[in-house]
Amino acid sequence: MVNVDLLPASGQSTTISVGDVVTEAGVTIPDVQISFFAFYDATSADPNYADFSEGPEPGLDVDQRPILLIEHALTGDGNLADWWFEMVGPHKPLDTTRYLILCSNVLGGCMGSTGPCSPHPDGKAWGSRFPGISIRDMVTAEKALIDALGISHIQAVIGASMGGARTLEWTLMFPDYVGAALPIAVSARASAWQIGLQSSQIRFIENDPHWHGGDYYETGHTPAEGMGQARRIAHLTYRGELEIDERFGVDPQRNENPYGAYRRADQRFAVESYLDRQAEKLKERFDAGSYVALTDALNRHDVGRGRGGMNAALAKSQVPTMIAGVDTDILYPWHQQEHLSRNLGDFIGLSQITSPTGHDGFLIEGRQMGLILQKFLLKAEHICQDVRE
Amino acid sequence: MVNVDLLPASGQSTTISVGDVVTEAGVTIPDVQISFFAFYDATSADPNYADFSEGPEPGLDVDQRPILLIEHALTGDGNLADWWFEMVGPHKPLDTTRYLILCSNVLGGCMGSTGPCSPHPDGKAWGSRFPGISIRDMVTAEKALIDALGISHIQAVIGASMGGARTLEWTLMFPDYVGAALPIAVSARASAWQIGLQSSQIRFIENDPHWHGGDYYETGHTPAEGMGQARRIAHLTYRGELEIDERFGVDPQRNENPYGAYRRADQRFAVESYLDRQAEKLKERFDAGSYVALTDALNRHDVGRGRGGMNAALAKSQVPTMIAGVDTDILYPWHQQEHLSRNLGDFIGLSQITSPTGHDGFLIEGRQMGLILQKFLLKAEHICQDVRE
Repeated sequence: MVNVDLLPASGQSTTISVGDVVTEAGVTIPDVQISFFAFYDATSADPNYADFSEGPEPGLDVDQRPILLIEHALTGDGNLADWWFEMVGPHKPLDTTRYLILCSNVLGGCMGSTGPCSPHPDGKAWGSRFPGISIRDMVTAEKALIDALGISHIQAVIGASMGGARTLEWTLMFPDYVGAALPIAVSARASAWQIGLQSSQIRFIENDPHWHGGDYYETGHTPAEGMGQARRIAHLTYRGELEIDERFGVDPQRNENPYGAYRRADQRFAVESYLDRQAEKLKERFDAGSYVALTDALNRHDVGRGRGGMNAALAKSQVPTMIAGVDTDILYPWHQQEHLSRNLGDFIGLSQITSPTGHDGFLIEGRQMGLILQKFLLKAEHICQDVRE
Repeated sequence: MVNVDLLPASGQSTTISVGDVVTEAGVTIPDVQISFFAFYDATSADPNYADFSEGPEPGLDVDQRPILLIEHALTGDGNLADWWFEMVGPHKPLDTTRYLILCSNVLGGCMGSTGPCSPHPDGKAWGSRFPGISIRDMVTAEKALIDALGISHIQAVIGASMGGARTLEWTLMFPDYVGAALPIAVSARASAWQIGLQSSQIRFIENDPHWHGGDYYETGHTPAEGMGQARRIAHLTYRGELEIDERFGVDPQRNENPYGAYRRADQRFAVESYLDRQAEKLKERFDAGSYVALTDALNRHDVGRGRGGMNAALAKSQVPTMIAGVDTDILYPWHQQEHLSRNLGDFIGLSQITSPTGHDGFLIEGRQMGLILQKFLLKAEHICQDVRE
């Protein structure tokens, strides 16, 4: 049920054309390219490995395996083994000996799928010509990828944060394709507080003199400073106040003195230096145009749009869906996970990651996240067995 | 016990010279000016007004009255009747018929007390020559004001947020002058998360091309854009996610469409427009140099510095101190109020404002704040009576 000839080697990526994508707001993006990773190992030779008797059989041929679709977050990418390395691999929760695991780079991103920095048909970067996209448009492009690969059934869609938003939209846009879903640390729609933070981040980038209305790709400069400002604030919303304080407190950065006679930008607290590093790391690996496009898509996230409202849309959901989140998340607070749980039409469970780390708990609390994935995947297997029987 | 000749008329302000102030970090600011408001009414003629039998007598001569010192927050000012109008007035919790109420504009601010935009002895603005100041330096200047006014005893010091930090420092720096204290929505020291947010806000201003290293006062331009960026983020930390979402949700601003085919900065969500207004309002009334100086002082806030550490400093506190905070505050989370309560050497009570509004609850929840002030002021009166007897 998958055209294996189109898959990259396990752990590798490839890019394929999925045709035109028409956005929710009516713009046609021609000849969209989607880059994706696939993970599928043969059965491990490890004799000490104990099977889950209830899970799918290990070692099936790739075209016989249940498929998991993993959705990455805002600045993540298709290389699941990089950002969720504790979760994916032989005999790990996302068991590469049992499943065919796919993770595609998002439409609008900068990791190989079509986005603002990709070449427009005229050869120059899309830049400001790249349209405003929604979470649904990203899913439309992913569905085109799934079709191109010849896939008609996905055992489970799993994603956190912006990946959780796409996971929710999969269940509402293409319920017939999805066996079960696990949106993590996300909400039914953007909250006004999120939009306030996110739109401010967009402005920091648009106010950078190197932004040039989004058409900076041939100027030799990038609005990296503005993106760094955005990242500083975003990172503080991804982390927990308790964790950040335990790590840094009021410590000065080594050999610097933020308590001096005059304030100086080069005399920092340790947490300032930490945020500088976060900003620098993002500048090196991410495109500001994509940051704006994806952040704008997060602002547009609303499962209720055109579906009779948020709770009506959730009530109509036909895909068995489990919800997970982090107790100290200030960006997608726990009450949003409770809201989803109360309103989803086919709700199968709620799991809480307990952590001082806030939103990023799904990346950091490997033990807890692993148990949640295992529990969810057994549910998904049972559901899909029931459907098959 | 106050030189009434130096007081302004009730509800008015005046400015007096308090001499040189030497900062914690060793810089002398010569001939500091402190602007302050005073509030004291004669007994109201309202025959329906019922006395609190336990409070101080109403209608005493001003020089016989107990004194309350109120400490304003970061962008607040000495005009208490403006920002805490529900709290101050005849027969209100801060009863102007019973007390002499003083509220001074902070050192480093831009409302009449010496700060970066004030004239240096050479006649030009202080600008970058204004030193880095701490919360303690602000209190040093206030103590000089109190001395200049001939005051030797303050019945109670009360303040929230940055005003709460000054209130705490009053109890540790000048315990003999303070009968009781009520720090509200504050912490014993800046948390790393706060420093992360606050230092980012400083950078937004310093990155504004109009900043000119802090010496923009004669350029005809101000770094108002950078200060607006800082304000957008700060305001979101002053408010609650629940309240902001209830007010704005995913609503577009009237006659704008943030869901259009292309992202446009002039097609906003309602919450973006709200933050635009917050930023514009601050630009009109506040100086960016002061915003940097006061935010830097918040970063330096640490009652433990030079006192054997945070908890040792609190344990040595000799002033009866009550603590209050807001349950949904993300900037000064409730656990920080609990921390103060557990460690203060003379702790007299903890009160919680329950509100969806977050940190600004002390400004918004007038009924709850009023009850807390009444309870605290009766405690303070009893304490001061005991001391007098």
